[in-house]
Amino acid sequence: MSILVVGSVFFDTIETQYGRAERALGGAATYFAVAASFFTPVRMVAAVGEDFPPEDIAFLSGRGIDLAGLQRRSGLTGAWAGRYHEDMNQRDTLQLDLNVFADFRPQLPASYRDAQYVFLANIDPRLQAMVLDQLPAPGLIGCDTMNHWITGSRSELEQLLSRVHVLVINDEEARLLSGERNVVRAARRLLAMGPRRVLIKRGEYGVIQFSANAVFAVPAFPLEEVFDPTGAGDSFAGGFMGELARSGDTSEAGLRRAIVYGSVVASFVVEDFGMNRLRTVTKDEIEHRYRQFVALTDIDAT
Amino acid sequence: MSILVVGSVFFDTIETQYGRAERALGGAATYFAVAASFFTPVRMVAAVGEDFPPEDIAFLSGRGIDLAGLQRRSGLTGAWAGRYHEDMNQRDTLQLDLNVFADFRPQLPASYRDAQYVFLANIDPRLQAMVLDQLPAPGLIGCDTMNHWITGSRSELEQLLSRVHVLVINDEEARLLSGERNVVRAARRLLAMGPRRVLIKRGEYGVIQFSANAVFAVPAFPLEEVFDPTGAGDSFAGGFMGELARSGDTSEAGLRRAIVYGSVVASFVVEDFGMNRLRTVTKDEIEHRYRQFVALTDIDAT
Repeated sequence: MSILVVGSVFFDTIETQYGRAERALGGAATYFAVAASFFTPVRMVAAVGEDFPPEDIAFLSGRGIDLAGLQRRSGLTGAWAGRYHEDMNQRDTLQLDLNVFADFRPQLPASYRDAQYVFLANIDPRLQAMVLDQLPAPGLIGCDTMNHWITGSRSELEQLLSRVHVLVINDEEARLLSGERNVVRAARRLLAMGPRRVLIKRGEYGVIQFSANAVFAVPAFPLEEVFDPTGAGDSFAGGFMGELARSGDTSEAGLRRAIVYGSVVASFVVEDFGMNRLRTVTKDEIEHRYRQFVALTDIDAT
Repeated sequence: MSILVVGSVFFDTIETQYGRAERALGGAATYFAVAASFFTPVRMVAAVGEDFPPEDIAFLSGRGIDLAGLQRRSGLTGAWAGRYHEDMNQRDTLQLDLNVFADFRPQLPASYRDAQYVFLANIDPRLQAMVLDQLPAPGLIGCDTMNHWITGSRSELEQLLSRVHVLVINDEEARLLSGERNVVRAARRLLAMGPRRVLIKRGEYGVIQFSANAVFAVPAFPLEEVFDPTGAGDSFAGGFMGELARSGDTSEAGLRRAIVYGSVVASFVVEDFGMNRLRTVTKDEIEHRYRQFVALTDIDAT
């Protein structure tokens, strides 16, 4: 099955202690789509400006991403600039120009309406809801959000969560949305808001998944160098949902394997600036690291 | 096989957001010994004062801990008081009276000299070395330390590390000792100092073990309430080394299972103040949670 994603496409200017990338292709929908494209065909709903270059279109198309839902509008593509601290869990936003993204309204091409697997990347929950309104029979809906919407659009977000199956957020967002510091209590509150599963991303400490009956925790893949964490969370979601859409296996075991695939893709993304590593990584490398991941976590390994 | 531990015995006065414990039995050697006693006989080398009450002696003896190496000296038992922040990874020390511990010199009874499994809990590395000097043929030596010795007694600590097989420290100490922020690079540096294995404790995020050939990461057991984190690290070490001494299995698989047992014991300790939970927990409860731990981390769980 294909996976449909709605979200942002941005040009990112990124500084870390290891260097700088200027106007690199980025945005949550982009990272998600490219990550998911290693597993299954992807349909993308987003908006770019007149400055969006043909080589980026060619790259996305070349990855098997269907761009029928990518609106090209007059004006400029959104642009973000940020600087990471030495502790890469901390970053400062230096610039945020929404540009054509400011009045983005997702409109799904007729060819997308049969979508079964859907991911609502981090945008205004009203726009996320608009996507669901255009889908007659979605099967599995995943969703991300951020602090801005949790504090500013809580009621719209809560309405949306009642329609979502899998919530994928980071630990800080989980605390803010639930009002609970403890991760178990936070997850319990979030499950009560509607999603059947809550996946909490903990950066270098990995991911923990909660459902009514089970908890599953995986570490992040230990890396000697993290050059740039930009897009790691969105790539995790892309690998996770992409593998789910590919396998169609939404059992506990299927979810767990998909979480590991998401973790594997995210571990590649941070090895280079922006999405450079996603331009070179192969499915073989992904499968190899998946096996390393199993060895990393296997209590009965020999 | 039995396990020998040297370290501190203190009375702890602890404040967390959930309450307060006054002069509770504590200290690294105590937590280690009680945790290890669920797996194997324990021998303890430490010092207490005239104020150390018969009921605490009875408790330790009742747990099968050999107290031939426990010096009772004139003066008072060491006393510590601390207050945890709402974020329980942070705490302030309000009081630290070393008392009889100030001039503690470990002296091993003749009956301890055949010790095979040894743990040097956090004390002055000169004292840790003194213990090794009194052991003709130790088999497996584990060691902990803290910031105070890393900055104040680095050369003594480095000498000690060249004699140690397993280093068990927390992430902050690993960074300080190695000079590396990244956990993989930190562990590589620490392995180069002598230990064959380095276990880095990451609090609520679990433990990661490094050796020359393998990495193993486990999450902490997810708990809804953490009442008091005091002693969690020492109890982890006690469960880990106690299970290793019991099984005698120092293969990769044996080490991994021991790490999970250590994590299980630590997860019980934090459920109540001081070592209250270690007074009530049963081996059955430990085995039950071990199985839950396996389910928590098993990628192919059904």
